[in-house]
Amino acid sequence: MRQAGRSLPEYRRLREGISMLDSCTRPDLITEITLQPLRRYDVDAAILFSDIVVPLRAVGIDVDIKAGVGPVVETPVRTSKDLERLRALEPGDVPYVTEAVGALVAELDERPLIGFAGGPFTLASYLVEGGPSKNHDKTKALMYGEPELWHALLGRLADITISFLQIQVAAGASAVQLFDSWVGAVGPDDYRQAILPHTRRIFAALGEKAGGVPRIHFGVGTGELLGLMGEAGADVVGVDWRIPLDEAVRRVEPGKALQGNLDPAILLAPWEVIEERARDVLARGRTAEGHVFNLGHGVLPETDPDVLARLADLVHAESVRTPA
Amino acid sequence: MRQAGRSLPEYRRLREGISMLDSCTRPDLITEITLQPLRRYDVDAAILFSDIVVPLRAVGIDVDIKAGVGPVVETPVRTSKDLERLRALEPGDVPYVTEAVGALVAELDERPLIGFAGGPFTLASYLVEGGPSKNHDKTKALMYGEPELWHALLGRLADITISFLQIQVAAGASAVQLFDSWVGAVGPDDYRQAILPHTRRIFAALGEKAGGVPRIHFGVGTGELLGLMGEAGADVVGVDWRIPLDEAVRRVEPGKALQGNLDPAILLAPWEVIEERARDVLARGRTAEGHVFNLGHGVLPETDPDVLARLADLVHAESVRTPA
Repeated sequence: MRQAGRSLPEYRRLREGISMLDSCTRPDLITEITLQPLRRYDVDAAILFSDIVVPLRAVGIDVDIKAGVGPVVETPVRTSKDLERLRALEPGDVPYVTEAVGALVAELDERPLIGFAGGPFTLASYLVEGGPSKNHDKTKALMYGEPELWHALLGRLADITISFLQIQVAAGASAVQLFDSWVGAVGPDDYRQAILPHTRRIFAALGEKAGGVPRIHFGVGTGELLGLMGEAGADVVGVDWRIPLDEAVRRVEPGKALQGNLDPAILLAPWEVIEERARDVLARGRTAEGHVFNLGHGVLPETDPDVLARLADLVHAESVRTPA
Repeated sequence: MRQAGRSLPEYRRLREGISMLDSCTRPDLITEITLQPLRRYDVDAAILFSDIVVPLRAVGIDVDIKAGVGPVVETPVRTSKDLERLRALEPGDVPYVTEAVGALVAELDERPLIGFAGGPFTLASYLVEGGPSKNHDKTKALMYGEPELWHALLGRLADITISFLQIQVAAGASAVQLFDSWVGAVGPDDYRQAILPHTRRIFAALGEKAGGVPRIHFGVGTGELLGLMGEAGADVVGVDWRIPLDEAVRRVEPGKALQGNLDPAILLAPWEVIEERARDVLARGRTAEGHVFNLGHGVLPETDPDVLARLADLVHAESVRTPA
């Protein structure tokens, strides 16, 4: 249940007067914010509090997260000359991540910590557009019009992402989740040609070199891409709420697990509706070789934390709990 | 090719100092703006220049279209009391539409004019949220939590939409297109239960009572809904670019035609790329019982008009032109 924080009063209190990127670069805050939802909810894992632009900022990109807007890149990346600004990420660039992951793993004991990074299309979009974008026009113009530059850009982003996730695994993260949030903006042919090779390299580097942790992959509106996201090397394919989970199962090759897919907006409905829908997701999930119950996207800020607690309990009561 | 205007210098000149809603309520401007793309492009039909909120404003909803934001509803519709504000639409409420359609049909001669209206989910979202929305939270909270109020709201919106489209057909429009732009925000079960009955009523009213014009239906990100959109009574199901057109064909019942589905962002790429992709869409479209070539969404503002002209010529050269 990503972004659970923004619905929690204790999170909002903690963040008062502290910018998003400051809170992602202070080990004490990363640790505390990661733990907050676990004090309320009986969930099976924690996910590292971070932001997809953290490793970009760490290598010197002039990105900031503006409240109510999102990540804004002062000097967009649009030429091969610009690529030089995307240098390799070293552990020394993100000491706060190493420190926070270590503290969290000690604190969490048996409960696994999931590492966190943004996926290559989404990172490229923020860098090329210079900020959030409705249609990703400039990004796609580069993808369609300058394939060599595109692949060079995604290659550098994959390098940074591999390093960022390996740092988290080295510090004790038990799994990783790669959020290519906006990759659903492209169709399957473009995904296969322009994005998959880079995602595959990221997942391969984590499978072989970093102790073989489970790899989760997620994007919004990716109904047509689920099979390819599995082919890219994800062990668990995240699914939003637009596609019934049993249909999603049919689109992913055997041997993969699925994660999802309750519409976060359902949590704003009366409990009877939530319960019925959660049971439906669980039932459809039983058609998969493995199913990690989750929302189909981040927790909406206006969600009642007590409803989330009740949902976590319902899911545990209904499903077989497997040891970590 | 909807929203072609915003890429045309002559459109931007004409609109200078005139608000969007003013331009949608002046017959001379509706007519001129509808015709502008046809002077540049050898397209097979014109689509009426309008906005989905025009009929809402005509029945007295305090909606305005703010530049750079979109439709903003001063007093949102969220209770059964609020529904009273959604009274029936009469021809006398939109004389400018009747006048403009009449003038256009005379001017267009053999070339068909496609009527235009917004679909029930999208209209409901603007009314309930009070403006554009990323997640449609309040809309879905109402849909999930207060189904009776939801169906009453969509029933009134369907009445208004039926009337708005019948007025256009009575004035001479040869076909209608219903844009439920954001309906892809819900999954198929919700679509079937909460939206389809209202869309079906709209299409049925146009089939029986209004001379049986062809009915086109479109929404963004509707890969999982295409079959249901056909079941709702569309003769032509519009498809965005996220799903390969031949796969879309397999999701729609026999007897339906498809429309789409070139990614509008491809038009920002070099001509060789555009040509290859356009031919690919045409080839996949040949697997359908009928295919209306189109972009998968509106024209992007930064599109070069000469590229659109070249695309229209390519499509005509490649496809069999059927008489109107």
